[in-house]
Amino acid sequence: MELNETLDDLQNGYYIFQKKDGFKFGIDAVLLSDFAKNVTGNVIDLCTGTGIIPLLLAAKANVKRIDAIEIQPQIAEMAERSVNYNKLQDKIHIACADLNDACEIFGSSVFDAVTVNPPYMKCGSGLVNETDSKTVSRHEVKCTLEDVIKTSSRLLKPFGKFYMVHRPSRLVDIFALMRQYKIEPKILRMVAPNPQKEMNLVLVYGIKNAKSELKTLSPLYVYDQNGEYSKEIDEIYGRR
Amino acid sequence: MELNETLDDLQNGYYIFQKKDGFKFGIDAVLLSDFAKNVTGNVIDLCTGTGIIPLLLAAKANVKRIDAIEIQPQIAEMAERSVNYNKLQDKIHIACADLNDACEIFGSSVFDAVTVNPPYMKCGSGLVNETDSKTVSRHEVKCTLEDVIKTSSRLLKPFGKFYMVHRPSRLVDIFALMRQYKIEPKILRMVAPNPQKEMNLVLVYGIKNAKSELKTLSPLYVYDQNGEYSKEIDEIYGRR
Repeated sequence: MELNETLDDLQNGYYIFQKKDGFKFGIDAVLLSDFAKNVTGNVIDLCTGTGIIPLLLAAKANVKRIDAIEIQPQIAEMAERSVNYNKLQDKIHIACADLNDACEIFGSSVFDAVTVNPPYMKCGSGLVNETDSKTVSRHEVKCTLEDVIKTSSRLLKPFGKFYMVHRPSRLVDIFALMRQYKIEPKILRMVAPNPQKEMNLVLVYGIKNAKSELKTLSPLYVYDQNGEYSKEIDEIYGRR
Repeated sequence: MELNETLDDLQNGYYIFQKKDGFKFGIDAVLLSDFAKNVTGNVIDLCTGTGIIPLLLAAKANVKRIDAIEIQPQIAEMAERSVNYNKLQDKIHIACADLNDACEIFGSSVFDAVTVNPPYMKCGSGLVNETDSKTVSRHEVKCTLEDVIKTSSRLLKPFGKFYMVHRPSRLVDIFALMRQYKIEPKILRMVAPNPQKEMNLVLVYGIKNAKSELKTLSPLYVYDQNGEYSKEIDEIYGRR
């Protein structure tokens, strides 16, 4: 472990290296891996960062192999070390590459499922430093939402499954781009801090080449009315 | 009043004629009129049916004039009689016409707001009788979702407001078509029977020519956990 890193217990049998002053995984990664827990076969995780989604899926899902792609070399290297530390080298394979090159690396129509927790924010004039690692994780500096969805569609087999977590403010963009690239949105689940607050995350499940018909599940609330973690969140974190 | 009709009290000072064996207004119309209660200026209600939305808006919203369009002559005539019965002839104007001809009748870019509670169901092979009045109210026999959104966009002034109630299963179609016809979705509110159930209605507010950024409100639940009408529904119906 390097000096500026922590080794955090994922409470699922695995551990993850994270930078002390870097981007740390949040509840969105945990919710996405739970939302995608029924994936099988060969999965690819785009914008994998420190590899949190593969490390959570490895414990939770019955997958054959998880490829994961991260553009930032120092983050991809850390993900690689987490995989090795957990002895998951046979299951998880980290690639340091631009996701726009993913089809050249892996081929087209090869994956059963894609998971992705992409940068949420559009690039705007407010950015101080576009080479900063945290900025790359949060803003669409290196890849746009369109890049993510276009690449996912090319990587997926026909009827392959697509799982993404994002912000509700981008839901129109998400649906329009998914339809444009032939991944039909099939299930929507919204997440809010509690029943009185606006929604602040969306979980979207789509199927490549499927017919149109969206199912909208009941919302997921992080806290209950008493300010305690909701029963469902405790279940997802394995606390009940 | 004709023999096969009822005259129902809207509890807002107004009454509505409805056919005993015909399509009766439901909670979706009540929720849409509440969602659209801040409209001002000149409003048009498409697929108006018995005129329920204009009759609710006339009591609730500070509008100058409401035009309303209905394709079925016998339903439009009944709406007209309700308007006369309530002495609202100066405010509400019913037109019996195909909404695809609306721009020829009213002109383009003339309305401050559009409200619409369109038929929800796509035309399928299951239809027994496409000329049946209830079928026309429920299925896209006479107008498709695309007709509704395309016509709305043409009727609205720049930055005019669009309010629609529909089914969540069509949300991808709704967002894709609104964007195609330059009405950007700005607010989404989902409705469910209670907090444990899937969403079964969506309220969508869009602005013509606006920038993209969607706000998703907390869901509206019709019943609370005890099976009673929720506080919000009682407020909308004026019972609290």
